[in-house]
Amino acid sequence: MSTISIIGAGNMAAAIGTRAAQHGYKVEFMSRDAVKAEALARQVGGAATVGEFGARPAGDIVIVAVLYASAVDVVKRFGDALEGKILVDITNPFNADGSGLVTSAGDSVTEQLAAVAPASAHVVKAFNMLFRGVVADGKPVDVFFAGSSAEARGRVATFLESLDMRPVDAGGIELAHALEWAGLLLVGLARNGSGFDLALSAAVR
Amino acid sequence: MSTISIIGAGNMAAAIGTRAAQHGYKVEFMSRDAVKAEALARQVGGAATVGEFGARPAGDIVIVAVLYASAVDVVKRFGDALEGKILVDITNPFNADGSGLVTSAGDSVTEQLAAVAPASAHVVKAFNMLFRGVVADGKPVDVFFAGSSAEARGRVATFLESLDMRPVDAGGIELAHALEWAGLLLVGLARNGSGFDLALSAAVR
Repeated sequence: MSTISIIGAGNMAAAIGTRAAQHGYKVEFMSRDAVKAEALARQVGGAATVGEFGARPAGDIVIVAVLYASAVDVVKRFGDALEGKILVDITNPFNADGSGLVTSAGDSVTEQLAAVAPASAHVVKAFNMLFRGVVADGKPVDVFFAGSSAEARGRVATFLESLDMRPVDAGGIELAHALEWAGLLLVGLARNGSGFDLALSAAVR
Repeated sequence: MSTISIIGAGNMAAAIGTRAAQHGYKVEFMSRDAVKAEALARQVGGAATVGEFGARPAGDIVIVAVLYASAVDVVKRFGDALEGKILVDITNPFNADGSGLVTSAGDSVTEQLAAVAPASAHVVKAFNMLFRGVVADGKPVDVFFAGSSAEARGRVATFLESLDMRPVDAGGIELAHALEWAGLLLVGLARNGSGFDLALSAAVR
């Protein structure tokens, strides 16, 4: 049984963790709020466990499912415990009124995480273009991702496929900021008639 | 027979003009290069015409199908001739190596055009997330758009539907920059395995 580690115990941590557990993963939740992590592990059930916040994650793939504003601090806090790991950045750094981003080109949250993570770790942006309900509904869905390491992207792609998701590779980490804007676009579409049951897909004609 | 005006005589002008002509529009091409506009009008055939560059366009909807670097100058050049028109910005302001944009949040090409267009004109971003071949193939496709005026967006939506395209409203003009990034994302996806027959679609689940 493969292990996937998730840092965070919020809505997206729950949705991704539940989907992973349903597809046979042992899910490890790590949160500053150990009580919340315990509750989430019980809710997900099966083989879900709680890991100590800041300790070395059990999984090779570590989903960083915290709010964007604390993501850099969380990766710093784990520090060397993340050596060799594939970190998955799912954040959407929207500004206060949702009209734009707090990040800029070349300085996406993904790039910020890569700057503070151990050199042997790789950061891949993924899942940020998905509403929580779409992750939770279990149906096939396209998941767009970007990151510097082609090997890490390949391993994320394999993980996504194992969750009955279709991996759609956007390329290098410079595309992570495009994914952040696409997250904002998704909300714009949802608010302007498409609704929050929406997902984007990449269709070859 | 409704008239649609297109400023430009390049590949996207040809693709959009051809699709509009096939759906019964009288297409007016306006280009600095009158010879190229004449050739394009002949190629599109039927009721396609050439209008004088800088004169008042015949159509209520005017597609600004020039390269991003000249779009602001073109709208300035037309000036008051664009009063009351709906200008459709299709540009992708990619930087030289295609790793990012030359525009920034709050200063998309769309917002730049709105700043120089007559106050009675409205600017809507659309078509920038489509490869030329996808416009040309005539099949149904989702077209994402954004702009300040809900009425103008509604009229663009009606125009898109008449071309057998599905309008997908992203909201106000502040989303135009998100569409510019989505254009870059589309190229990233195409280059990383999806290919250039790709289009994004917004699927409600």
